[in-house]
Amino acid sequence: MSHHRYRTTIEADPTVPMVRITRDFDGTVGQLMRAHTDPDLFARWVGPDGMAVEILAWDATTGGRWRYRLRRDGEEFGFHGSFHDVGDDRIVQTFTYDGYPEGVALETLRIEDLGDGRCRLHAQSLVDSFEGRDQFLASGMETGVEQGYVELDALLEADR
Amino acid sequence: MSHHRYRTTIEADPTVPMVRITRDFDGTVGQLMRAHTDPDLFARWVGPDGMAVEILAWDATTGGRWRYRLRRDGEEFGFHGSFHDVGDDRIVQTFTYDGYPEGVALETLRIEDLGDGRCRLHAQSLVDSFEGRDQFLASGMETGVEQGYVELDALLEADR
Repeated sequence: MSHHRYRTTIEADPTVPMVRITRDFDGTVGQLMRAHTDPDLFARWVGPDGMAVEILAWDATTGGRWRYRLRRDGEEFGFHGSFHDVGDDRIVQTFTYDGYPEGVALETLRIEDLGDGRCRLHAQSLVDSFEGRDQFLASGMETGVEQGYVELDALLEADR
Repeated sequence: MSHHRYRTTIEADPTVPMVRITRDFDGTVGQLMRAHTDPDLFARWVGPDGMAVEILAWDATTGGRWRYRLRRDGEEFGFHGSFHDVGDDRIVQTFTYDGYPEGVALETLRIEDLGDGRCRLHAQSLVDSFEGRDQFLASGMETGVEQGYVELDALLEADR
């Protein structure tokens, strides 16, 4: 149960309209990158508990696209974006919730090697207004992010 | 020579790390969209005077990728990004100068119909720090943008 010891930090940046997320994992940089780029792995951990994930498009290469849908009890939530850059320890991607197509986030994920098979995920999500950023924070996204990472912990543990 | 009467406004947003560009054109919304999505048309106007444009990848659909190179006197400048969303009067795309791969801009272009065959381009370019935004403004980008739009004026005039 070592995977329950890590806290997810979700912070509003004081000077730019950005949310910063930091989270440690018992996994290597390569494992974390695969969890974010392999569609089958990604579908197994992303999103809040009890949501079914359906990948509709996925090309996790620089310039590729992605699209998926979360479903629960007849409710459906679609998301889409582009992989702007996919490197060895960094992914830059765009993100839109299809229910609010005007809203676009530019996300950067960096995976820092902490040694001993551990790593730290640094994620930042930039939008074009503080109002949009604060709505995003107020939307309950924290629960979905944290529940997803607990699933990712379990996936990494099963992979050891 | 009607195309010399429009000014390009380039402004630093006071509250978010964004550059805003506004420019009128003697062209329809459809013409402006084609000038930004058709690779042959785009190559004819983008960039500073005297630069040759070479399109290396181009898929101007939602989720598609783009990549091009500007060349002059043996100098070469590469750029790449993704088309996050391509609509009827709006394009959201990412932008990176390959010489500074850490820098990523999220660009939104909106074409406003002014009637009488004229339109107004509203472009915004968002980055993740004010330092990055101010370096971008100090890089001489204004000259390239303005010279490109004068070429686009000529292209629209030839199309009438």
